[in-house]
Amino acid sequence: MATELHIFAVPGIPEITHGLDLAQVIAGALRRAGRAIEAGDVFVVAQKIVSKAEGAVVPLADVIPSPLAVEWGTACGRDPAVVEVVLRESRRIVRMDRGVIISETPHGFICANAGVDASNVPPGYVTLLPPDADASAARLQAALTGLTGQPVATIVADTFGRPWREGVVNVALGVAGLTPLLDCRGATDPFGRSLQSTVIAVADEIAAAAELVMGKTAGTPVAVVRGAGGWLGAGNGRSLLRPASMDLFR
Amino acid sequence: MATELHIFAVPGIPEITHGLDLAQVIAGALRRAGRAIEAGDVFVVAQKIVSKAEGAVVPLADVIPSPLAVEWGTACGRDPAVVEVVLRESRRIVRMDRGVIISETPHGFICANAGVDASNVPPGYVTLLPPDADASAARLQAALTGLTGQPVATIVADTFGRPWREGVVNVALGVAGLTPLLDCRGATDPFGRSLQSTVIAVADEIAAAAELVMGKTAGTPVAVVRGAGGWLGAGNGRSLLRPASMDLFR
Repeated sequence: MATELHIFAVPGIPEITHGLDLAQVIAGALRRAGRAIEAGDVFVVAQKIVSKAEGAVVPLADVIPSPLAVEWGTACGRDPAVVEVVLRESRRIVRMDRGVIISETPHGFICANAGVDASNVPPGYVTLLPPDADASAARLQAALTGLTGQPVATIVADTFGRPWREGVVNVALGVAGLTPLLDCRGATDPFGRSLQSTVIAVADEIAAAAELVMGKTAGTPVAVVRGAGGWLGAGNGRSLLRPASMDLFR
Repeated sequence: MATELHIFAVPGIPEITHGLDLAQVIAGALRRAGRAIEAGDVFVVAQKIVSKAEGAVVPLADVIPSPLAVEWGTACGRDPAVVEVVLRESRRIVRMDRGVIISETPHGFICANAGVDASNVPPGYVTLLPPDADASAARLQAALTGLTGQPVATIVADTFGRPWREGVVNVALGVAGLTPLLDCRGATDPFGRSLQSTVIAVADEIAAAAELVMGKTAGTPVAVVRGAGGWLGAGNGRSLLRPASMDLFR
């Protein structure tokens, strides 16, 4: 357990385009900001810039909507081409109601619009989720560890809505170099009682913490969480996905 | 939007019992730790100690389980008295399956076991959620503002599970002095596109961030989040609850 955390945005990240080396961009921005990186720093990177760098961007002009996308999109006042991309990025529709599509993606995420998003991209384009966010996080971790000379961890994060609660929160899609779940089962409380079911989603909490300094429109898609080094270790984002057989809500 | 956050646990909080003045306890612990409080600091306090201070603790010996609690508890290997308390604290059962009860509480929270919990309490007792977490947060905010001489905000938080994802994350039950939702709708991205649906659950993200330094068994049920002063203002935890009419998952 950490006792102190320090979280800061990495300023001066330029607009990211296909093929840019994100690790070089981030290391350069840190250098210009005069920020030294320490062992155990966790880099939280918005999915949006990972998708842009990897080319996971679709021009809507190339999309021919299916009849379902045309009918439902038109009825809901949504662009049928965007709806079509959402359907293509889904392996199962969990809810499709009141203009909202909640679907399960091929990666196993359950989220609105299969993670397809039109914000912070040029008009006429949408971004998709990275095809393998864990692999993206791992590549970034290796490169940032090399460039900074420090063992660091990485989280590729996106804001997801939740059932029952208003607002979105940042969650970890891809994780590298960090234990995403802190298993407290078997630890004993001050009364000697063994904790029965407490597994804390540390990677999601780190992602949420970082989001507070990231900003949706302010061009700060990268933050550093310092003080979380105790959780460095092997891990990935896939382990944060509850298997369908254990889930009561799909 | 904050650009830097600093988060620290308040050390040396003693075991909390019914009737203790939490604000005095927290202010005393800060004093002993030599920690000065700054304007805009957000205190995140574990629901568990709020419930204990307010006497929201039930001795299981006094509980006579209903036939439903006896049958289901026995079948699932759970104490029928605890199951009975969970049923009494529920206004609606959302799921009751595989030993898990997800229910809607009278306050409107949807969570496992209606927030009833046996950890960090003496054997034979369980805690309930505070009857009005917003009122608890407001009392604590007023008292801490008085004791520290600084305008501060408070969040009464608990760890909740989520559909689809493994692990629990801390969320805000009660909020005082803080805007819990940051509404970015209408803000424009660098491409001039107005954000359509982004409302960020800032209070939940602050609660999640604080949990990283709080620890489930380490006796650190209070943390301070510094740097979030930009979100100080009117607000409550109720506004984080999605109305049933807008919810697709109950």
